[in-house]
Amino acid sequence: MYRTHTCGELTLKNVQNEVTLAGWVQTVRKFGAITFVDLRDRYGITQLLFNESLNPVLDANPLGREFVLQAKGKVQERSNKNPQLATGEIEVIVTDFTVLNKAVTPPFTIQDDTDGGDDLRMKYRFLDLRRNAVKRNLELRYAVNRSARNYLHENSFMDIETPFLIKSTPEGARDFVVPSRMNPGQFYALPQSPQTFKQLLMVSGYDRYYQVVKCFRDEDLRADRQPEFTQIDCEMSFVQQEDILNMFEGLIKRIFKDVKGIDYPEKVDRMTWEDAMWQYGNDKPDIRFGMQLCNIKKPASVFVEKSDKPELVSGVGFQVFDDAETVLAIAVPGCSEYTRKQTDELTDWVKRPQIGMKGLVFIKCNTDGTYKSSVDKFYPAERLKAIADAAGAKAGDLVLILAGAEERTRKATSELRLEMGKRLGLRKENEFKLLWVLDFPLFEYAEEENRWVARHHPFTSPKPDHIPVMINNSPVIDNAAEYLQHPYANIKANAYDMVLNGNEIGGGSIRIFQRDLQEKMFAALGMTPEESQHKFGFLLGAFEYGAPPHGGIAFGFDRLCSILGGSESIRDFIAFPKNNSGRDVMLDAPSSIDDKQFQELQIKLDLKQ
Amino acid sequence: MYRTHTCGELTLKNVQNEVTLAGWVQTVRKFGAITFVDLRDRYGITQLLFNESLNPVLDANPLGREFVLQAKGKVQERSNKNPQLATGEIEVIVTDFTVLNKAVTPPFTIQDDTDGGDDLRMKYRFLDLRRNAVKRNLELRYAVNRSARNYLHENSFMDIETPFLIKSTPEGARDFVVPSRMNPGQFYALPQSPQTFKQLLMVSGYDRYYQVVKCFRDEDLRADRQPEFTQIDCEMSFVQQEDILNMFEGLIKRIFKDVKGIDYPEKVDRMTWEDAMWQYGNDKPDIRFGMQLCNIKKPASVFVEKSDKPELVSGVGFQVFDDAETVLAIAVPGCSEYTRKQTDELTDWVKRPQIGMKGLVFIKCNTDGTYKSSVDKFYPAERLKAIADAAGAKAGDLVLILAGAEERTRKATSELRLEMGKRLGLRKENEFKLLWVLDFPLFEYAEEENRWVARHHPFTSPKPDHIPVMINNSPVIDNAAEYLQHPYANIKANAYDMVLNGNEIGGGSIRIFQRDLQEKMFAALGMTPEESQHKFGFLLGAFEYGAPPHGGIAFGFDRLCSILGGSESIRDFIAFPKNNSGRDVMLDAPSSIDDKQFQELQIKLDLKQ
Repeated sequence: MYRTHTCGELTLKNVQNEVTLAGWVQTVRKFGAITFVDLRDRYGITQLLFNESLNPVLDANPLGREFVLQAKGKVQERSNKNPQLATGEIEVIVTDFTVLNKAVTPPFTIQDDTDGGDDLRMKYRFLDLRRNAVKRNLELRYAVNRSARNYLHENSFMDIETPFLIKSTPEGARDFVVPSRMNPGQFYALPQSPQTFKQLLMVSGYDRYYQVVKCFRDEDLRADRQPEFTQIDCEMSFVQQEDILNMFEGLIKRIFKDVKGIDYPEKVDRMTWEDAMWQYGNDKPDIRFGMQLCNIKKPASVFVEKSDKPELVSGVGFQVFDDAETVLAIAVPGCSEYTRKQTDELTDWVKRPQIGMKGLVFIKCNTDGTYKSSVDKFYPAERLKAIADAAGAKAGDLVLILAGAEERTRKATSELRLEMGKRLGLRKENEFKLLWVLDFPLFEYAEEENRWVARHHPFTSPKPDHIPVMINNSPVIDNAAEYLQHPYANIKANAYDMVLNGNEIGGGSIRIFQRDLQEKMFAALGMTPEESQHKFGFLLGAFEYGAPPHGGIAFGFDRLCSILGGSESIRDFIAFPKNNSGRDVMLDAPSSIDDKQFQELQIKLDLKQ
Repeated sequence: MYRTHTCGELTLKNVQNEVTLAGWVQTVRKFGAITFVDLRDRYGITQLLFNESLNPVLDANPLGREFVLQAKGKVQERSNKNPQLATGEIEVIVTDFTVLNKAVTPPFTIQDDTDGGDDLRMKYRFLDLRRNAVKRNLELRYAVNRSARNYLHENSFMDIETPFLIKSTPEGARDFVVPSRMNPGQFYALPQSPQTFKQLLMVSGYDRYYQVVKCFRDEDLRADRQPEFTQIDCEMSFVQQEDILNMFEGLIKRIFKDVKGIDYPEKVDRMTWEDAMWQYGNDKPDIRFGMQLCNIKKPASVFVEKSDKPELVSGVGFQVFDDAETVLAIAVPGCSEYTRKQTDELTDWVKRPQIGMKGLVFIKCNTDGTYKSSVDKFYPAERLKAIADAAGAKAGDLVLILAGAEERTRKATSELRLEMGKRLGLRKENEFKLLWVLDFPLFEYAEEENRWVARHHPFTSPKPDHIPVMINNSPVIDNAAEYLQHPYANIKANAYDMVLNGNEIGGGSIRIFQRDLQEKMFAALGMTPEESQHKFGFLLGAFEYGAPPHGGIAFGFDRLCSILGGSESIRDFIAFPKNNSGRDVMLDAPSSIDDKQFQELQIKLDLKQ
C-alpha cells in the first residue's frame, strides 16, 4: 500500500504518528523557506509542510498542480487551524516524498467553482470527476443505490439479471439494435426496459424482483435525456395497487432517510390524473406550493365531470375570452404591486415560443381593496373581484389569466405557475414533497393513424371495473372526429406515477395477466394477431401456463439522484454521460468501424446523400 | 394483497389462524371425498385440504397442475406429518378459494427431476425457472451478489456505473457494435469490460471502485460461454500486488462464509505461472489433490530454469521417449491393480481427438514391491522403480506416462490428471480450494503476424523489475524462429489469477499508469502511434494529468456461482441464457428488423451467398 492513512482521516489523535499519505497536489504555497502543499484524495485534504531542509529536493523535483505525490512524515498540531476541514487541526511535517506521477497543467481548475466550460469538462471528464461537486453527486448516487438495495432486500426482493441482447419489438420508442455475426441478417435489440422479462419472472414465481439496470432508447435527445439510463426496476406478484403504493413509498422514504436524513412519516398524497390536470395543468404537479388553477372555462369534451365558471368572463364582449376554448387563472401571492415593467415582462414570458400564448391578462388585488386589471375596460370592479375570489386571490395578490386552446393553455398556465413559484422561492430546494398520481387514461389517441396507443405501455391493466369495457367493446374508431366519445377514451389504467417536487421519478402499473385481455390490448393498438404473436408470442404463451396477478414500478434512477442532489441536470449524476447528440466526447464515440467488422457482420452503410 | 402468508411459513404456531395463501397447484390428490392440493410459491409448499363440502365447487372449477390459486382457510395440525417440509406439520382446511388463472398442461414436469429436455426447457424457460433446482441457483446467485456488495461496501469501495454505448477498439476479442442513428455511419460498441473506464476513475481519484456489470464479447461460443456475461469488476489505487491479493481473497472468503457457511481461515496458496505449468500442466491447477506432474524430459527452450530427469528414460533405445520433446508422468494412487481392460480404456481415452496423444505408457507399482509396465521389454525393474520413485509413486500406485510435443503433452497430462482425480473422487464437490497464480508472461507470441500480443490485456504492467527490460528493448522480432530468445519473451506480468478448484474465477493486474510505458506497450502490440492515439488517446491523455498507481481484478460472476452451486454449466445460473448459437430460443432472438429501422440507421444487409 502506498499509504498508511487517507487524506481525510488524520486528527489531533494522530499527533506524533508517523504516517504516509498519497494523493494529488491541490495547491503549493511558499512562505519564505517553507512550502505548504494541500494533498487531496477521495476522502479529503491534508496539509503537508516541507521544511527548509527539503528545499534542495523540492528544487530538483518541483511540485505542480495535480501531481501524484507520496509523502511520509509526522503529524503535528497546526498553529493556524482550519475549522472548515476535517483534518484542519493537524498538518504533516514531511520527512520524505516521492512524485509518483507528474501532471501537465489541467485545462481547467479542479475546484467547485471551476473555470472550465461544459464542453471542456466533458472532454476531460476524468478531470471533471475530480471536482468535489461532481464527486459528491456520485457519492449520493451510490448512497441511493445502496439504500434502495437494502430496503428491497429486507422486503424479500431478489435481484435477478435480465438479458441485454434481446429481440427488437419497437412499440413506442425506437430500439437500439445490434447486428448478430453468428446469425447473419438478424439483429438483437438493447432493452428499453426489462418489462417483459420481469413479467416472465412473475410467471415463474419469483414474486419480488428488482434490478438497478441500464436501459436504452434511441430517441432524439431533448435536453437532459440520455440514450442509456438507469432504472430501479421492480415487480411483485399477488398484489393490488394499494400494496404497490405502500411498498414503494416506503422505498422512497427509506432513501430520504438514508441519504438525506429526512423523516417523512406522513402518508404520501394521492391525486387522480384528472385532478392533477384540472388543478395544476399537468400530470406531475409540484405540490410544495398552492397557486392552483382556477378553471374559468373548460372545453366541452374533456373534464366532463368538472364544473367551470364561464359566467365570470362571458357576456361583456371581451372577444379573447369569449372565443377561447379554455380560460385559466392563478393567484400569485403578494405580487399586486408589480410594475408595468414587471407585468410586461411576464407577458413577454408567456409569449415565448416555448410557452406560445398570445397574451396575458392580469388583475391586481390591491391591499386597499381595489382592483386594477389589464382588461379594466371590459370588466367592472365587481367582476374582477369575482374572478379574483374564484382564483382564491387575497388582497395583495396578482391574478394571472391565460386563454386559448385547451392543451396549450393548460400547459402554459402550468408553466407560468411553476415559474412564479420559482421566482417567489416557493419551490424550496430542501423541501421534498411526494405525490402519487393515479387513474391515468389507459389509451391516448394517435390522430395520424386513427388508432389507440398505450399511454403507459401495452402491458398495463385497466382498472378492475374498466376491464369489461375493454373486453366488451371493439377498439375500432369509426368516427375519428368523435374519438372522445369512444368507450375506450374513458378507460382508466391501473397505473401510478410517483412525483417528487414536480418531477416524475417513477411509474408503473398493475399488469395484464390474462391472455385474452392482453390480446385485446394488442388488437386495440392496431396489431394483427400475427404481429402480436411474432413480437410477444413468448409472453402470450407464458400467460397460458399459470400467470399470477402482478404489478410493478420503475424509478428513473438518474433523475431521482439529481432531484435529491438539488440539480436540474441528470448529466451531473452520471459518471460518463453523453451529450445531446448522443456522443461521448471524451471517447469520441460513436465512431467508424473497420471493413473487417462490416464484412463479419455482413452489413454495409446505406448513407442518404 | 392476495395472501396473508406465503406457502413456506406456516407452522404449528399458526394452528387455528385464518389465513389466505396464493400460489401454484403442484399436485392434486383425491382420497375418497377429500381433496389434497400442494400449493407452491417461491417460499415453499403448503398442503391444502378441501373437504367434501367443497366438492360441488371443485367439480365446477376443476383444479389442474400449475393453476394459480388463492385459498382461504384455517390452519390445523396434520395427522400425517411430513418432516421433509418446513410446513410439514400443518395443513390448511380450505373454506373458500378462487382460481386466479388457469394453466394448460406444461410441456414438462415442474420438478427437480423434470422430464423436459434441454431445448424444451430453454424454449419454456419461464416454466423451467419454476423448478426448485433452478430457483436455488438464482437464489445462490443473488446471495453471492449481495455478499460481494456488502464486503466491498464495508471496504470503502463505491459502485460507479460505466457506460454501455462506448467506442469500438477491437483488441483481442470481437466487439458487438450498435449503429448510431443520430450519427449515421458511426457505431457504438458494447463493452467487453469496463477496463478503461475503471482506470479513468482511478485517474479521477475514486480509489476503490466496483461494479457487478454485464460485459459483451462477440466470440464463437464454445460450450458454456455466453455472448453477454457478468463480472464483479473492481479497481484500487495506491496499491501493490500484495494489497490486491489480500483484499480480494478476503472477498471470496466472505462469499464462502455468507453463501456456503464455509470458514477459510488459511491464507490462499500462491503459485507462479511457471510452477503451475510445471507441476500441474496448466495455469489453473486444481489443488484439491496432488498427483503432480513428474517432468522427465522438458523442451530446450521453455522452463529453462527447471531441472528434469531425462536419464530416467534415455539410453535404452525406446524410440518414443527418445524422440519426444517432453515426457511427463503422474502417479495415480491405489490403481496398481488396474486390469488390461482398464489400462486399454485409459489408452483409448488419451487417444481421443480432444486429448490427441498417440499412446500411454504405464507402470504398475505392485503392493509386493514388483513393477509391471507396458514397456517392460525396454526398461529393467530398477529403471521402472526409479521412474516411479521420481513420480512419487508408492506401492499400490499406477504411474501413467505421456510423451510428445511439449504443449500438447503437457495439456494432455494435465487433462489425464484431472480425469483420474475425478474418477478417484479426489475432486470433492464440497471442498473449496483457492489458489493465486502469479507471474504470468506479459506477452504471447502471435506467429501469423510475428508480433507480440498481450496475454492479459494491453493495460497490464510488467513486474516492477521487468519494466526497464520493456522500456530499454525494441519489441521488434527480427528472427521469428528464435522469438523465445527475445528479451520480451521473459518479461513477467504484474498479474494474478484466482483459481478455485481448477477454474479461473478471477483475474487482474497492476496496471500501467505511465504514458511512456503504455505507449511502449501499444507499440509492442504492433500499433502505430496514430492507431494507439485513435483508439486509446483518451487514456494516454488521462495518464498525463496525474495518474496514480493502480490495479484491479474482475471475477467471472456466472462461473463463480456455478462452482459454488456445484454445477459445470454457467447457463444453470443465468435466468435467461442464450444457446451455443447465441440465440434466445424463448424470445426467438436475434431476429429480422423492419425496413424502417434499416432506413433510419442508414445501413443495409450485405449477406454473403
